[in-house]
Amino acid sequence: MDMEPEESTPHSYTDDKAAYLKRLRRVEGQVRGIARMIEGDEYCIDILTQVSAATSALESVALRLLEDHLRHCVVHAAADGGPLAEAKLAEATAAIKRLVRS
Amino acid sequence: MDMEPEESTPHSYTDDKAAYLKRLRRVEGQVRGIARMIEGDEYCIDILTQVSAATSALESVALRLLEDHLRHCVVHAAADGGPLAEAKLAEATAAIKRLVRS
Amino acid sequence: MDMEPEESTPHSYTDDKAAYLKRLRRVEGQVRGIARMIEGDEYCIDILTQVSAATSALESVALRLLEDHLRHCVVHAAADGGPLAEAKLAEATAAIKRLVRS
Amino acid sequence: MDMEPEESTPHSYTDDKAAYLKRLRRVEGQVRGIARMIEGDEYCIDILTQVSAATSALESVALRLLEDHLRHCVVHAAADGGPLAEAKLAEATAAIKRLVRS
Repeated sequence: MDMEPEESTPHSYTDDKAAYLKRLRRVEGQVRGIARMIEGDEYCIDILTQVSAATSALESVALRLLEDHLRHCVVHAAADGGPLAEAKLAEATAAIKRLVRS
Repeated sequence: MDMEPEESTPHSYTDDKAAYLKRLRRVEGQVRGIARMIEGDEYCIDILTQVSAATSALESVALRLLEDHLRHCVVHAAADGGPLAEAKLAEATAAIKRLVRS
Repeated sequence: MDMEPEESTPHSYTDDKAAYLKRLRRVEGQVRGIARMIEGDEYCIDILTQVSAATSALESVALRLLEDHLRHCVVHAAADGGPLAEAKLAEATAAIKRLVRS
Repeated sequence: MDMEPEESTPHSYTDDKAAYLKRLRRVEGQVRGIARMIEGDEYCIDILTQVSAATSALESVALRLLEDHLRHCVVHAAADGGPLAEAKLAEATAAIKRLVRS
């Protein structure tokens, strides 16, 4: 699979799929844990701490996806140049903006 | 239930439990959806958009928990005054700080 | 001065005015420094580091203003109860939301 | 200076210098305005709204600098490939991370 990255691994994060899925399962567990805390009437501030932790974990996933995307998709498009390169950069910048604002 | 807030509703979010649990189940579904997008080799930018959406959803939960907490726990403690009031305010401010920074 | 908070200290941050003004002058200096870095053709990443530092400094000012506001205005209104209390809480929550999203 | 961008203007934002400087002067004015609001005992929530506006303005400057940096420095380095390309990407990702967290 790693032999022909352009053909068989269409996206930048493919090599790292297992790591991403593991991180996301952990976030899913954190969100379920927050629900259990609410069901168990736990203290609001402790729940908020867990919500901040889950938010940070999701942001880490986003930052890693973004880095992989810049490294592969954007840089490849940029090396080719032309309007696609510009479009990819604008798209990546919009994603960074959503991330900063979210 | 509202008659004896201190005894029968131990926390500020208790009346709204069902709404919180529904929102959290939706976030859990979003996180699972992101994992499926990665398994399905979907486009990185589309995945990032979903991660930003899940992050925003979690932040909304946090803002709502915080508002409930201020309305009930902090305001009650503040009405009583004394060191507990100050401790509650410092605790709430620290939670807001984590939220702003996360 | 603390006897008649409603009359002699019109706002929660009044006692700390000098500290706020000092922090804001420092932020102003940081922003001017960023302009000088751009005029001097300094490296983009170094400029970005300074922009992040100025943003964090402004957020610290906001968090401190918010804490003072909760401690004084919101808590006083809440002790009085009624629709004003609710309005103050809603207003503070909206400010926290703007802060988290900005 | 604008004639030979590759040689005499070492950085990506150089063509846009005047626009950056104008934006930063506006942010500087916003920060001075916040100080005046504090000196004039204005209402905390109104001050917080201005602090959020200044923070957002600074973040816009950062996002624009970052986009210019990706478009020029990172993409050029990436086209050349090698360890410098990797270093530039890691550096840009770290700057994005500071921006998201700040």
